[in-house]
Amino acid sequence: MHIVSVIHLLGLLLLCIAATMLLPVPFSLYYADGSTFALLVSAGATALCGAIAYNRTNYDKEVRAKEGFAVVTFGWIAVSIFGSLPFILSGTIPSFTDAFFETMSGFTTTGATILTEIETLPQGILFWRSLTHWLGGMGIIVLSLAILPFLGVGGMQLFKAEVPGPIADKLTPRVAETAKLLWGVYLLFTIIETILLMFGGMTFFDALCHTFGTLATGGYSTRNASVGAYQSAYIDWVIIFFMLLAGSNFALHYRALRGDFRIYLRDREFRIYLVIIAAAISLITLNTVPLYGNFPKAFRDTVFQVLSISTTTGYGTADYELWSFSSQYILLLLMLIGGSAGSTAGGVKVMRLHLVIKFIFTEISHLVHPRAVFPVRQGGSVVSRDVVGNVVGFFVLFLLIFAAGILFMSFLGLDMATAFGAVAATLGNIGPGLGLVGPTDNYAAIPGIGKWMLSFFMLLGRLEVFTVVVLFSPVYWRK
Amino acid sequence: MHIVSVIHLLGLLLLCIAATMLLPVPFSLYYADGSTFALLVSAGATALCGAIAYNRTNYDKEVRAKEGFAVVTFGWIAVSIFGSLPFILSGTIPSFTDAFFETMSGFTTTGATILTEIETLPQGILFWRSLTHWLGGMGIIVLSLAILPFLGVGGMQLFKAEVPGPIADKLTPRVAETAKLLWGVYLLFTIIETILLMFGGMTFFDALCHTFGTLATGGYSTRNASVGAYQSAYIDWVIIFFMLLAGSNFALHYRALRGDFRIYLRDREFRIYLVIIAAAISLITLNTVPLYGNFPKAFRDTVFQVLSISTTTGYGTADYELWSFSSQYILLLLMLIGGSAGSTAGGVKVMRLHLVIKFIFTEISHLVHPRAVFPVRQGGSVVSRDVVGNVVGFFVLFLLIFAAGILFMSFLGLDMATAFGAVAATLGNIGPGLGLVGPTDNYAAIPGIGKWMLSFFMLLGRLEVFTVVVLFSPVYWRK
Repeated sequence: MHIVSVIHLLGLLLLCIAATMLLPVPFSLYYADGSTFALLVSAGATALCGAIAYNRTNYDKEVRAKEGFAVVTFGWIAVSIFGSLPFILSGTIPSFTDAFFETMSGFTTTGATILTEIETLPQGILFWRSLTHWLGGMGIIVLSLAILPFLGVGGMQLFKAEVPGPIADKLTPRVAETAKLLWGVYLLFTIIETILLMFGGMTFFDALCHTFGTLATGGYSTRNASVGAYQSAYIDWVIIFFMLLAGSNFALHYRALRGDFRIYLRDREFRIYLVIIAAAISLITLNTVPLYGNFPKAFRDTVFQVLSISTTTGYGTADYELWSFSSQYILLLLMLIGGSAGSTAGGVKVMRLHLVIKFIFTEISHLVHPRAVFPVRQGGSVVSRDVVGNVVGFFVLFLLIFAAGILFMSFLGLDMATAFGAVAATLGNIGPGLGLVGPTDNYAAIPGIGKWMLSFFMLLGRLEVFTVVVLFSPVYWRK
Repeated sequence: MHIVSVIHLLGLLLLCIAATMLLPVPFSLYYADGSTFALLVSAGATALCGAIAYNRTNYDKEVRAKEGFAVVTFGWIAVSIFGSLPFILSGTIPSFTDAFFETMSGFTTTGATILTEIETLPQGILFWRSLTHWLGGMGIIVLSLAILPFLGVGGMQLFKAEVPGPIADKLTPRVAETAKLLWGVYLLFTIIETILLMFGGMTFFDALCHTFGTLATGGYSTRNASVGAYQSAYIDWVIIFFMLLAGSNFALHYRALRGDFRIYLRDREFRIYLVIIAAAISLITLNTVPLYGNFPKAFRDTVFQVLSISTTTGYGTADYELWSFSSQYILLLLMLIGGSAGSTAGGVKVMRLHLVIKFIFTEISHLVHPRAVFPVRQGGSVVSRDVVGNVVGFFVLFLLIFAAGILFMSFLGLDMATAFGAVAATLGNIGPGLGLVGPTDNYAAIPGIGKWMLSFFMLLGRLEVFTVVVLFSPVYWRK
């Protein structure tokens, strides 16, 4: 571990984040919300720390996979610590525990909030809150399509061939190249969705904040009642469409924008993703239509909630806790499955679930013919045993952490639905869960130690578990 | 598939089961309970069908692994169909769905019952009900220590070296040899426990029935209030001790009886099993002691319930649904983990959980050093990749079926606790679950289709999932 290189890069990251803290300032001034000073001080403090870290260190040696794990994990933690400054300094979230939870939830694009009253917050702070989503989303796109394949985490190396940009042995040039191409797509989607939402009657401020929450699959809203506050079918469908895009592989969008629209149909993961969503909508509609007694509204609410949960966004237009347990259980499964690999969504990812099921089938064939070799295939080509082991290992570890997380939360006195929901919603980076942390509630009432643990689950889920867990391994720190 | 050989063996199995149906007859006559005729007719009908199947067929070719899957799966189904005759013909359980559920629950040593009133049942029928446990337990010991290692299911081949008896390529001689040795242990334990329970004041009939339920980790009682009806610390501790034995590998007991008592301490799985049980008892006692306000009774009830659930027996002396969610959740985890491999307990098994965690550690090491090879080791020796794949595949498939099972049950209108509890309690072969199927309730109120599905889960869990699932694979039936 070249700790010096890691600190150098973390310093650079803090300098970038300090610059983005200035973006809410115009809104703060325009609305004269009194948060300008807090934002400027936060940016200054972050820049100062960043500059010290950056200037006092240097690339010791080039960054390899080993440093990659540390840069990514400590990077997300560092921005969440410094990113909580505007909340603390403006007095909107005085407790560091709460402010850190809110910021980690933002940068991991989870969208779980400890705020009970959102609409009275200063606009500059609300903008910063939504911006953490958007920045986190940028980070994840690059992480999942450039950094993780390089680190070999959880089978993401399957994307090595699929990602635009040159394939390099060194981390930095590849990241820079991929980032440039995919952030273009991300920015384009941001502009289009913002304009479309303004057509639906949102202010520029609200449209931008909701766009940030959508494309990052985050879910922070500027309204207490989330997207449901607008009571607009048009706005619902625009957000549904962009949630679907945000939950799909951004490499596909890049190719589609270059003219190859059929790439969506050719992509196995995207097709399976659509089938899962369609099945969930069909099954839940069976429950909601009799409940609502109104097909169009029941269908719209079902589609919105299914897309919001399965893309791990977490926006709400209906209280799904009023639905049957079967519908809520389907949503719980969708939380764990998550979106596509290479998207801003969380969860296990459709590609991994598919590979795990393929692995089970080969194990069954192997039992029938113990001497034959049955490689796991995906789309006609053989997946290496290393990748299969990686993906299956990810799946198992994700579920073990899920089970252990519920155990921990149960000792804080939470009930069954709340404990299952809170762990699924943070580990899967969704936001709202079930029970006391359901879609009409928030995480304010969770005890402090619980908030720290849930923040940790957000980080674990966001960084595909292994990236963080590796740092706890003695092998990692051995010379 | 040599279907003729399979039918031949199934015929032999039915002949054996028909003979065992005569065992309850003396009790039926002694208590003059009116069930004698039903038992005799059941035995006769079963013997007739068995004789026809046995005589009209012959060993086509010798029995290989491929036939092994079919013999085991169809064998358990066949005995559950014919074993339900005494319940139907005596009029105690008139519905075939209910009678099949009760019998499958017996032979799989699950202990889930649809009976609301047990104490008024004819003694002959009660004896048959408990006897299905004992016979199922005999089947499982041979299955897990002789047949499954041969079939290569779920890593049980790890036991090839551990099992007493000759190692053969052909199934039959190995099974016969192992059965003889281990059934001796089983029979010895049966005699000792029965005598000890009679010292505690049980009648010979009750002592025998409760011994059957203990050693098979079944859980059928002759009393409505289960073991709690006796209100006896002595009886509780005797049953606790024998549940612990029944949940441990019978090959260890065989060796211990031959003088090597230190085998328990040397056995890794047994040690881990004790640690899991001790941890569960400690954590739950923290909850029950303040609840009871009486340490000795709280401790005894905690130890009994933890042993009963973790060995997948399902006897009850306390209503754990009055305990906190954290305690209930620990019990839910114990249901899924289950006992040791080579025992009569169900669940994933401690050995497999241990190997899965080892696998995760090697995957982490592999991420740090992608070019190094990290084999999975257990007790110093390398576990082959085939076995690791098998065990991990088992673990994943078990959890996927668990998740899918809850989905199915949720569509029958069950609530969260009931659905989770019912699937865990049947798939893990425990018996009582949570919610409406908790320790003071029964499965009578589950809709018919739900009872069939839960019966299927009992079979899946009991036969280590793969044994049954293989039969659904097209590869299996291909020439």
